[in-house]
Amino acid sequence: MSTTTQSYLVGLIGDGVMPSLTPPMHEAEADAHGLRYLYRPIDLTEIGKEGKDVGELLRAGAMLGFNAFNITHPCKQLVLEHLDEISEEARAIGAVNTVLIRDGKFHGYNTDASGFTYALANGLPGAALDAVLQLGVGGAGSAVAYALLASGAKELFLVDPEPSRATERADTLTAQFPESTITAHTPADVPALLPRASGVLNASPIGMHHHPGVPLDVTGLNAGHWVADVIYRPVDTELLKAARALGCQTLDGGHMAVGQAVDAYRIITGLAPEAPRMRNHLLEMLEAGL
Amino acid sequence: MSTTTQSYLVGLIGDGVMPSLTPPMHEAEADAHGLRYLYRPIDLTEIGKEGKDVGELLRAGAMLGFNAFNITHPCKQLVLEHLDEISEEARAIGAVNTVLIRDGKFHGYNTDASGFTYALANGLPGAALDAVLQLGVGGAGSAVAYALLASGAKELFLVDPEPSRATERADTLTAQFPESTITAHTPADVPALLPRASGVLNASPIGMHHHPGVPLDVTGLNAGHWVADVIYRPVDTELLKAARALGCQTLDGGHMAVGQAVDAYRIITGLAPEAPRMRNHLLEMLEAGL
Repeated sequence: MSTTTQSYLVGLIGDGVMPSLTPPMHEAEADAHGLRYLYRPIDLTEIGKEGKDVGELLRAGAMLGFNAFNITHPCKQLVLEHLDEISEEARAIGAVNTVLIRDGKFHGYNTDASGFTYALANGLPGAALDAVLQLGVGGAGSAVAYALLASGAKELFLVDPEPSRATERADTLTAQFPESTITAHTPADVPALLPRASGVLNASPIGMHHHPGVPLDVTGLNAGHWVADVIYRPVDTELLKAARALGCQTLDGGHMAVGQAVDAYRIITGLAPEAPRMRNHLLEMLEAGL
Repeated sequence: MSTTTQSYLVGLIGDGVMPSLTPPMHEAEADAHGLRYLYRPIDLTEIGKEGKDVGELLRAGAMLGFNAFNITHPCKQLVLEHLDEISEEARAIGAVNTVLIRDGKFHGYNTDASGFTYALANGLPGAALDAVLQLGVGGAGSAVAYALLASGAKELFLVDPEPSRATERADTLTAQFPESTITAHTPADVPALLPRASGVLNASPIGMHHHPGVPLDVTGLNAGHWVADVIYRPVDTELLKAARALGCQTLDGGHMAVGQAVDAYRIITGLAPEAPRMRNHLLEMLEAGL
């Protein structure tokens, strides 16, 4: 009730962000903390902008009193050149999904990787990371691959329909994690790789509501594999259903969505959110069809 | 708790707006209504902009999800050319202090005049409007002169140290209110005008914290005059103190500040705020030295 009360104005910049559940996740957690917090999705297409305009949007936000932005497709790399500082992890991943505005300067972070690290540690505690097969090496894929290696994965099979993408990412990660073995593959290699893998991570879009199906032939899975998905709409993908039916331990994409929101919220407010409360809220919203 | 919940993002564009109490007045009223509402002061000097940049700020706000702006000095006239629609009253006054963004279009309103009309009707009910002497014909002055005439003032003496300003305004208002008599004067005329006036309104800056003093020789006042001020910092100006000591009915500037906020809030949310609650909050903040 004073002019000096801290309040938080946050935006999410990207394409197709209007239905994102990140804004209400942040807002509900802030309500629980008694903070004034408003989180606006800013859809590039709706406002007639493109990914390359992300710098203009950041500067507009700084003028108008925004405290921070989350950044998503297609701006996670494009935003880099507009930042004054970039966290070590974001620099290593080559992508930023959170920009904090402080004294007119832009500070970049990546909470996709830390969010997945959190998800893995909490949703699949003790998961064997001897050898992980990862499907999809796009935007989210780069961050989760980094998180897997930072969490101790010894071998990582990167599978992508676009061979150069997997190869480039494998080269970059090999330089960063020289003690791990990181190899690039195409989907045709999956049947041969599966028996060597302790776990499978889907970071491809296959399984999303508008991209239904499974990203691999699930007959190659067995109860010894853990199976994780980064997709959270639906939270229970065809892949996870099939894996559970085979007796696999599974990790749904809601865990990562919550993990990245938890870390972004902490960066923005300096307060520790209650991750289980945020997950319950996310599941409630998904249940309600939001 | 859903992506579709309506929430309100509002800004105040102008110079020296950081200490404004309008943002917390709106926010507290919205809290009482259970609305998510965030109101940011946007100080031109602090962000390296000028009054002429108001259009750029409006467009930036539209991109980033702002619902509305309040507009103050020096942008109330400069904003006109950037608007898609202007209310009849704002057009008549020649100034806009509230811009609503709807479907990407900018709709301009003036709640300074309606706010003063409200203040007069509620804070000085039954005040005689036969002849009113108004000191100061700047930004706020134009709006309150309009409000006085719209409220039924028969004679209006416009006093300003800059003669052309008073003359121009008198001409404009005469065209708009042909049944009233509106005349332009300099401060030297005040002693002769006072005995003919039923009330005195100060719309000059004299009496503000950083511009102390009284805007006229108070020995010319008597208990038959009502005395109003548009200044609300301090809420009890030297002028009002002197007038009360002489037995005059008085109206402090807090009434107008609340009146304009009440109308802006109604335009933005479509909800009727509780004016007495907003006034109590304003007085509490002023008491607390905010």
